[in-house]
Amino acid sequence: MGKEKLVKAITSMEDDFAQWYTDVCLKSELIDYTSVKGCMVIRPYGYAIWENIQRILDGMFKETGHENVCMPMFIPESLLQKEKDHVEGFAPEVAWVTMGGSEKLEERLCVRPTSETLFCDHYKNVVQSWRDLPKLYNQWVSVVRWEKTTRPFLRSREFLWQEGHTIHATAEEAMEETVKMLNVYAEFCEKYLCIPVVKGLKTEKERFAGAVQTYTIEALMHDGKALQSGTSHYFGDGFAKAFDIQYTDKDNKLSYPHQTSWGMTTRLIGAVIMTHGDDNGLVLPPAVAPKQVMIVPIAQHKEGVLEKADELFARLKPNFRVGLDASEQSPGWKFAEYEMKGVPVRLELGPKDIENNQCVLVRRDTREKYFVSLDELEEKITWLLEDIARNMFETAAARRENMTYDATELDEMKAIADEKPGFIRALWCEDRECEDKLKEVAGVSSRCMPLGMQENIEGKCVCCGKPAKKLVYWGKAY
Amino acid sequence: MGKEKLVKAITSMEDDFAQWYTDVCLKSELIDYTSVKGCMVIRPYGYAIWENIQRILDGMFKETGHENVCMPMFIPESLLQKEKDHVEGFAPEVAWVTMGGSEKLEERLCVRPTSETLFCDHYKNVVQSWRDLPKLYNQWVSVVRWEKTTRPFLRSREFLWQEGHTIHATAEEAMEETVKMLNVYAEFCEKYLCIPVVKGLKTEKERFAGAVQTYTIEALMHDGKALQSGTSHYFGDGFAKAFDIQYTDKDNKLSYPHQTSWGMTTRLIGAVIMTHGDDNGLVLPPAVAPKQVMIVPIAQHKEGVLEKADELFARLKPNFRVGLDASEQSPGWKFAEYEMKGVPVRLELGPKDIENNQCVLVRRDTREKYFVSLDELEEKITWLLEDIARNMFETAAARRENMTYDATELDEMKAIADEKPGFIRALWCEDRECEDKLKEVAGVSSRCMPLGMQENIEGKCVCCGKPAKKLVYWGKAY
Repeated sequence: MGKEKLVKAITSMEDDFAQWYTDVCLKSELIDYTSVKGCMVIRPYGYAIWENIQRILDGMFKETGHENVCMPMFIPESLLQKEKDHVEGFAPEVAWVTMGGSEKLEERLCVRPTSETLFCDHYKNVVQSWRDLPKLYNQWVSVVRWEKTTRPFLRSREFLWQEGHTIHATAEEAMEETVKMLNVYAEFCEKYLCIPVVKGLKTEKERFAGAVQTYTIEALMHDGKALQSGTSHYFGDGFAKAFDIQYTDKDNKLSYPHQTSWGMTTRLIGAVIMTHGDDNGLVLPPAVAPKQVMIVPIAQHKEGVLEKADELFARLKPNFRVGLDASEQSPGWKFAEYEMKGVPVRLELGPKDIENNQCVLVRRDTREKYFVSLDELEEKITWLLEDIARNMFETAAARRENMTYDATELDEMKAIADEKPGFIRALWCEDRECEDKLKEVAGVSSRCMPLGMQENIEGKCVCCGKPAKKLVYWGKAY
Repeated sequence: MGKEKLVKAITSMEDDFAQWYTDVCLKSELIDYTSVKGCMVIRPYGYAIWENIQRILDGMFKETGHENVCMPMFIPESLLQKEKDHVEGFAPEVAWVTMGGSEKLEERLCVRPTSETLFCDHYKNVVQSWRDLPKLYNQWVSVVRWEKTTRPFLRSREFLWQEGHTIHATAEEAMEETVKMLNVYAEFCEKYLCIPVVKGLKTEKERFAGAVQTYTIEALMHDGKALQSGTSHYFGDGFAKAFDIQYTDKDNKLSYPHQTSWGMTTRLIGAVIMTHGDDNGLVLPPAVAPKQVMIVPIAQHKEGVLEKADELFARLKPNFRVGLDASEQSPGWKFAEYEMKGVPVRLELGPKDIENNQCVLVRRDTREKYFVSLDELEEKITWLLEDIARNMFETAAARRENMTYDATELDEMKAIADEKPGFIRALWCEDRECEDKLKEVAGVSSRCMPLGMQENIEGKCVCCGKPAKKLVYWGKAY
């Protein structure tokens, strides 16, 4: 395998995590760089992961009553400016269209960085009465934010996402929706991507521009840095007031409706890479792997091997996403290739296996081997895919547990932040100054105030020593 | 029903076809206008049609070996300019991004009007050897063309589409792909949208900018105007040469590969509206209708009616896209509403029906009524949906037949073009001057040179009288 190893060699995580990440993105053929600065090509293998993410998430959205729509990709400057906090947050990082053909535009248009303003523009037309509420919308599109430094999937000038936007009669309903979608996101990450997440509220400093509350799910990457993996925002009636959206309620009075928005992006693919990957490449969760099983024939020139491999391929196809590599490459090359691509299960089949009515299954996560009778192949693969997902989740959860620390003093926090990558749990007085100081001194930002852990807070702020009001997860983040 | 009729009244086709079209788009809630000039909101009902179109087409693409990818939405000016004909065709109608945040860009970027140049930029990185060919790619994205006059679905500054892009070792293979995808498009239109199409080649004048050949499918709308419904382009090695893409062939020599591209857009929704719609609104093909069956309870306040309706809804849900309207609106209002929305089958269920173990099915296309035993409901609905699709296709085909004329002289052609909307079949000498003159005198453009009808052409050019070389479909077009 010496030669093949060379071809696909990647930097080890230990040596240089950032380079390892880039190597995996390129060598597993998820992306390609382009002549368009700060943007990327999502190649078939990367896009197939995104299609699986889309399919599952879209099903969860529809199951919870949401409908898909499509808004324009442009926002006239005057529309973007209607909500004060929102425009302040986004205007500095948008791309501006100023010419159409050879003519200068009367009003410049930004390419949407997010679409609250466009949805409000539409709500104003379609929301008149309580009968028109709620509207539970979502769209699958790309958005643009003019980032200075970019990295595949994690931060790029254009990225793909879904953005849910809903409008409700009451604050209670809108708040309920905000939390519901946070839970959908958490379930999706944990069940399908095998990524454990901390659900929590963002501090005021970290809130989405224009939101009253921002909820988040935070995951911990292999290198101990946090990755914000999905956010859900409650807007109250701020946008409705800015856009003058009112409805006639059941008592025939004019009222302002309440709004939410929530989004997940192609960043999730970065989360999958950095949560599960290893020095041999990607390790993909079975639910989103483009191929769940890859058949590699051994000694395929021998009589009957390819025929049998074809037969197994046809037999497995109705129940699994299965591939067969009958190319002229050596088995060793193929082993390395599908390890790099993170295919959950490799199925090896050679002349001896055929004689014994068996095959060999090798799981990507632990590299364990199983000799399996062909009579019970489907059952075994089904079990294996489930067991891989379970093990991937548990491994990630155990690592996060091991990389989560508690701190009660500023010095202690700084020492942990300097030496031990991971989450740091610490109490906070809710003062913005302390939050800024922790960033300055320890280099950490507040990731979230975890839900269900804010009752009976007793103790002192890790920074100023005054009585604490919140328990916060802090960390360095992507 | 007087009041409801008023609410949903639309202009009749006879009175004003353009206004009828706009009314249908708005009243059936397919779209909304926005503050973004020349763009539209695709509302849930419109987007659900597009999702069905996507699902079916995407399946056909994958069945024929294509993979989805995602290219950036921006094209640097220098990249757009690499292929001379291509840039000439598109540069006058692109939107230019000139600012990122508050900084002027060093090189302006256009929002993609189509992505040949981006695919070429990527091919250059991933195509080195004959082993890397073919690449059979597709993407589902939106594109922007700065149109002066716009109409929902038919012509808007931003529209949704798929663009297939493939690259092959030989001209033969690429040509085969071009025709294969044209056939996929024609099959999709005829089988799933119930729209008969003429398959043909475009004249040089009407070719896609940069293409060697452009194939098209042309449909005839209710008002006798043609609608180009999908195109498939063969590029030869022109783009490969402009972008310096070469591969090492099996004899170890450097060769230029050959390319294709092909696209279908949200325009198809416009084609569905204008092919099948009537003065009561939309008539949707069962394959893409968001709801295939809508249950309308009659006297729903009476005991047992809503329970039975719920039961039928649950029973039909696994096999059909079914809806149940149990709102407080009157049955008459609901009938008009779902006629406007073009739902293929209405299922009425009242106390008497329940007594008799039956229901009433009303088909949208012919408005025929069927009294159906609940014991054979699934079979009857399955038959009805198929029969509706068959009838819609045949009705459209018969209308097209009746609206297709032959002309041999220029005067005759002008008279037909002035008085009888539709296709005009006429021979042509293949001279650009005659094509231009027909546009000028009779107001028609060449729609296509139909495939399989170009053998043994004998006769004179309808314009100049010289010996003809091609049979051409001419017409006024959207």
